[in-house]
Amino acid sequence: MAPAGYGSRVEGAHAVRAAAAAGRVRKLWVEKGRLERGDITDLIAVVGEDQVAVVADVRSLAETEAPQGLVADCVPIDPVSVDMLVGEGAAIIVLDHIEDPHNVGAIARSALATGMTGMIMSSRRQAPLTAAAFKAAAGALETMPVAVVGSIPESLSRLKTGGTWVVGLDAEGDSPLFGLELLTEPVAMVIGGEGSGLSTLAAKRCDVVVSIPMAEGTESLNASVSAALACFEIMRIRRAASTWPG
Amino acid sequence: MAPAGYGSRVEGAHAVRAAAAAGRVRKLWVEKGRLERGDITDLIAVVGEDQVAVVADVRSLAETEAPQGLVADCVPIDPVSVDMLVGEGAAIIVLDHIEDPHNVGAIARSALATGMTGMIMSSRRQAPLTAAAFKAAAGALETMPVAVVGSIPESLSRLKTGGTWVVGLDAEGDSPLFGLELLTEPVAMVIGGEGSGLSTLAAKRCDVVVSIPMAEGTESLNASVSAALACFEIMRIRRAASTWPG
Repeated sequence: MAPAGYGSRVEGAHAVRAAAAAGRVRKLWVEKGRLERGDITDLIAVVGEDQVAVVADVRSLAETEAPQGLVADCVPIDPVSVDMLVGEGAAIIVLDHIEDPHNVGAIARSALATGMTGMIMSSRRQAPLTAAAFKAAAGALETMPVAVVGSIPESLSRLKTGGTWVVGLDAEGDSPLFGLELLTEPVAMVIGGEGSGLSTLAAKRCDVVVSIPMAEGTESLNASVSAALACFEIMRIRRAASTWPG
Repeated sequence: MAPAGYGSRVEGAHAVRAAAAAGRVRKLWVEKGRLERGDITDLIAVVGEDQVAVVADVRSLAETEAPQGLVADCVPIDPVSVDMLVGEGAAIIVLDHIEDPHNVGAIARSALATGMTGMIMSSRRQAPLTAAAFKAAAGALETMPVAVVGSIPESLSRLKTGGTWVVGLDAEGDSPLFGLELLTEPVAMVIGGEGSGLSTLAAKRCDVVVSIPMAEGTESLNASVSAALACFEIMRIRRAASTWPG
């Protein structure tokens, strides 16, 4: 059975505009007050007037706290397979059970901004790609290829078979993230969950586990901050080695 | 008139533990289900049993969505003055009207993890240091000195008079953040708001405005991610120049 699509619900100005630009919006609810502002005309034109309903308040329809007057029902996005992410130049972010949908969205945004080529996440014990994740992603989930898998450790084994180096990111890592030459190779960076960090089974599959150097007396970073630092380091090292296309 | 203190309301496991360790908790509400877990005994001992009330559900008392069974009323923290942040080794993060309290907290967390010496934020048009900010800060706001000011541009002028270089961070910046040698000097890094970026009045006060290089076709990063990259670059450059104490 193919995994179900994601992204059928999108809320918030930036995320809804991105979904509309991707041609995914099949029904758009616009708050009346929002309509009176000039900047919404182009969005309605892109979606098509017949697909737009004007309501007094979208908040009762919304999943997120601050939908900014815009709620969209969308054609779901199909996840990709892990095999489709493997290849020359691969730079894959693997979410090892991230619990907060804001973190998931923020990670997708940083991944897109740094030219990462895909994301892998679990279908279980993992914040799914909800409206909150799409809002935090600010459009990035429209274009970032995402594989939704049954088992992260199994996916890591599959990546390794396909010639991808697997790098874990954890506070307990042996060597520093910064300057890791391996990042010029096809690589998957595994980001541990907010509370528990890298899982034991995932860590076992890693070729190397790296950590982010911090000031003395401090212990941890937000998961989306750790992921962003990893993405930017991959971009930096590849640019320095001229193996980065950007 | 001295500015009012902040941090009188703290929620969530990590943030409440940090407030308790700082000796600030004067009343703690613990959810019954939470009490039955073993890991709460030490927290109650630190706070003092007389200050603890067990309730069926803390959510009706809570300001945040997921208080994790812990809500604390605390002795407020006094803000510092801008002048107290000036000096040799200064590395100050200035929030130029950040709207999301999660971003404010996440920035404080990254700032502490990288040895930044203080934060400056506005008392107006800026997410205040609410329970949500403290939760996202995961303890960092207990120790990070924060100045709460009436005007960010005026504070920047004051910092410059005190010998601090003022660096703006904006998508429109002239030169790249990475490798900026100036960061070894006493420096204040100004982070623009989520929607509007660096304000015109703040940008005018900056000695230099830098940007974060991104992949082609992408336009922006989450404010807390931008701030984290700036903090880590300050730490990296100072360590490389051996001017960083860590």
